[in-house]
Amino acid sequence: MNMNNFLFCSTPASWLEAATQNIPILLIDHANCEKKAASTALNLMYRYVDRPELLLQLSKLAREELRHFEQVVTLIKKRNLDYNQLSSSRYAGELRKSVRTYEPARLLDMLIVSAIVEARSCERFASLAPHLEDELSRFYLELLKSEERHFRIYLDLAELIAGGVSLEDRVQFFLEEDRRLVQTDDPNFRFHSGVPLPKLDN
Amino acid sequence: MNMNNFLFCSTPASWLEAATQNIPILLIDHANCEKKAASTALNLMYRYVDRPELLLQLSKLAREELRHFEQVVTLIKKRNLDYNQLSSSRYAGELRKSVRTYEPARLLDMLIVSAIVEARSCERFASLAPHLEDELSRFYLELLKSEERHFRIYLDLAELIAGGVSLEDRVQFFLEEDRRLVQTDDPNFRFHSGVPLPKLDN
Repeated sequence: MNMNNFLFCSTPASWLEAATQNIPILLIDHANCEKKAASTALNLMYRYVDRPELLLQLSKLAREELRHFEQVVTLIKKRNLDYNQLSSSRYAGELRKSVRTYEPARLLDMLIVSAIVEARSCERFASLAPHLEDELSRFYLELLKSEERHFRIYLDLAELIAGGVSLEDRVQFFLEEDRRLVQTDDPNFRFHSGVPLPKLDN
Repeated sequence: MNMNNFLFCSTPASWLEAATQNIPILLIDHANCEKKAASTALNLMYRYVDRPELLLQLSKLAREELRHFEQVVTLIKKRNLDYNQLSSSRYAGELRKSVRTYEPARLLDMLIVSAIVEARSCERFASLAPHLEDELSRFYLELLKSEERHFRIYLDLAELIAGGVSLEDRVQFFLEEDRRLVQTDDPNFRFHSGVPLPKLDN
């Protein structure tokens, strides 16, 4: 699967416009997303100790997410922004609602969802970068490469676990969910939020 | 506080003897401990986003714990050991039972407990190293330096948060708990367990 034509839709222009007007929320939510990405990898490392093929790759990936977290926190401090508690976007929680509850389906779905979150982050960084000031733009273009690598790692792990069984239907299902969440109205502006409502309620 | 005379007691000889006879359990529990140390740091990063002085240091510390996790997992694989699910030692759970539940006392206690866990790990690595084969011995002597640094980071953070209020009583209290857990009988051999019972029930 090629990441460039993997997702079913691009980020809507109205989200990009909202992003340029909500840089503090964007940065704080982005820091939270990196922290959550590290937690997700760590949780998989707790649950699947009997899958040595996962452990080392997930641990390295978690370390990289934490390094990004530190970079975003440094940008937040540099701008004298307060790192407030901020509610999560609906995005990842909604995607995970459809993760099956029995094994190995649960693990496969979790890996597919993680791959899609990385792909969407990558697409969003690429779409956003031209609209941002230099420092942020450079930073996001740099991160984009890691997100693409993480997308590939998650999909490869899913294929390894599936052992030849096609993942196509599940990937298509979650991509359809991603499209729905990106293209429908969303009251809260966040890094992975949908179409902003005219009056943002943050 | 100097780490060399910080703890109230050394690891008992009977624990060291049990360790040399239970290398697979030692390694798997050690891997789990590194993973848990990363989780503990990450959990503090979730809870205390309003403490920017904590975030960067805890994130770096979590990354280092994950790197150690990868090193232990690599040793486990090299020895063809199965990374089985293994119940936790009573040690950290018992220490945390006395963490106060209101802020900022909770945070202070968590930081003190984390410092003591690092100090005990450091003491145990140093005591164990001479009894192990070369590869493990070298690895543990290497890790010892990080544990000492982490001990210092946690204590410094506690002192920073305390803002001049003495931590002496709480530190002494938890050191007494650590002594109790190290010097009393413990049915399960683990990295932080107490005095092994004659017949180990693992």
